[in-house]
Amino acid sequence: MFIQIVDLLGTIAFAISGALIAMNKRMDPFGVLIISFVTAVGGGTLRDLMIGVEPVSWMRNITFVYVIIGSATFAVIIRNRISFLMKSLFLFDTIGIGLYTVVGIETGLVAGLHPTICIAMGTMTACFGGVLRDTLCNEIPVIFREEIYATACILGGVTYFVLLQFFEDRNYLFIIAGLVVITVRLVAARFKISLPSLYKKEKDS
Amino acid sequence: MFIQIVDLLGTIAFAISGALIAMNKRMDPFGVLIISFVTAVGGGTLRDLMIGVEPVSWMRNITFVYVIIGSATFAVIIRNRISFLMKSLFLFDTIGIGLYTVVGIETGLVAGLHPTICIAMGTMTACFGGVLRDTLCNEIPVIFREEIYATACILGGVTYFVLLQFFEDRNYLFIIAGLVVITVRLVAARFKISLPSLYKKEKDS
Amino acid sequence: MFIQIVDLLGTIAFAISGALIAMNKRMDPFGVLIISFVTAVGGGTLRDLMIGVEPVSWMRNITFVYVIIGSATFAVIIRNRISFLMKSLFLFDTIGIGLYTVVGIETGLVAGLHPTICIAMGTMTACFGGVLRDTLCNEIPVIFREEIYATACILGGVTYFVLLQFFEDRNYLFIIAGLVVITVRLVAARFKISLPSLYKKEKDS
Repeated sequence: MFIQIVDLLGTIAFAISGALIAMNKRMDPFGVLIISFVTAVGGGTLRDLMIGVEPVSWMRNITFVYVIIGSATFAVIIRNRISFLMKSLFLFDTIGIGLYTVVGIETGLVAGLHPTICIAMGTMTACFGGVLRDTLCNEIPVIFREEIYATACILGGVTYFVLLQFFEDRNYLFIIAGLVVITVRLVAARFKISLPSLYKKEKDS
Repeated sequence: MFIQIVDLLGTIAFAISGALIAMNKRMDPFGVLIISFVTAVGGGTLRDLMIGVEPVSWMRNITFVYVIIGSATFAVIIRNRISFLMKSLFLFDTIGIGLYTVVGIETGLVAGLHPTICIAMGTMTACFGGVLRDTLCNEIPVIFREEIYATACILGGVTYFVLLQFFEDRNYLFIIAGLVVITVRLVAARFKISLPSLYKKEKDS
Repeated sequence: MFIQIVDLLGTIAFAISGALIAMNKRMDPFGVLIISFVTAVGGGTLRDLMIGVEPVSWMRNITFVYVIIGSATFAVIIRNRISFLMKSLFLFDTIGIGLYTVVGIETGLVAGLHPTICIAMGTMTACFGGVLRDTLCNEIPVIFREEIYATACILGGVTYFVLLQFFEDRNYLFIIAGLVVITVRLVAARFKISLPSLYKKEKDS
């Protein structure tokens, strides 16, 4: 129940963030809706396809479809006053990747996959909606370029499997793993921590 | 039989349109062939993957493969005299999305999916070949930016499920739904109707 | 055994080439890792999805995951001295597409697909990792624009099915098909042979 509410909040956050970026690209209403959708369900869809869970999750739960349509519509309506939302949006988005990571790991475990693969599935669930969004908007995916984002998901996943050696109760471990993801991202954003750059300082352009 | 002929015409139209756009990007013959393929089968492939119909449709029907190779070759050969074809191409393409929408809805129904999801599957079948084509050509997908295109597919799908409340004969309903798609698109193109813009008039470049 | 070693060498070559291109785009370490992964397993993943082999191959063989992580790390560490590697990289890459083509054909045969589709699967396995890599890096895929690359894979596949009419021993045929791919690509690169251009000489820009 708790998980479902947070899952919905995450979906709403991703859907709104997709709609905002699509409007930035001056897409028409249909484009905004599709980018909103892809951002919210893209990562989970890719995970389900690769594991072989078909029809993919969102096609079996019509609630999510309506939530996404509603979120995209909401973003379109308040598009001129969205800035006051951006801060809570960042929080939703962060909660969202925390939960999506956990959902992805769990899906991998149910399919009997190796822990490393499960962590990859968790990270993919959380991050690839954004990757597809940026690719369809003709941008290099932002998570390949900056911010602690995927790294937070990976750390959360590693935490889960390390703790699994010592504890049995998966529900608690899922909550802890999700909190690790959220904490790492919030701390990194607060203190502007990013991955070490591979390149010399004098960046061109 | 009638459906198969129209399906083939739609495939030919999509394959030719893909080849034309690939040649616009100065791709080599292999690139032209692949973009042609992706445009013609991309939407249906994505639909089959997400529903779990595998191997995907075109891999089980070699005719389509040869038709696409033939269409791409034809487009390459007559590439300097293609303009006289463009008008019939638009018609084929419109017939194509009408039929592809119906095929997508039917595939969704067979898989026992919710009507809203079926409409999404129909729209995806008709539109995502073009989305993949534009993404591979490094463009923002054209259907996210202009024209009544996906909207026609959605309206056709809604018509189908509304009429299904009152009538039983699916074959007739499919024909009506397809005709709605085609009519909406033709009328919109004729009178230059597009979705309402979300943006103020003074467009920056 | 022999095949597994060459398969690993191919994976290493693809992973390194992906990492190099990602660093060219100034991606952060996570981006480099993902592009490396996508380049190495993207073609096989798409093939498995379309045929319906799920979970996809690399998710069932953790060795490949570690090999790719290792290769990407290696590429990052020696990034300033990579030029001396480029020649052997080209060789690995060529061996890689030879083997990947054969693996793809074999997967198609096991799934009972038509020879033409099997050749398409072989070519997809060898080439689409690079296509996805370039798309995520916001470039038009290089194999659509130049070089004998996919063409070599197609010729290898055709050779395989032509010889299959006359000989029975599939293992030998696989080796021959792989060698055809490798030879065609090496000869084309050596003598700068490319597909005939569809366009007039005076290229704009």
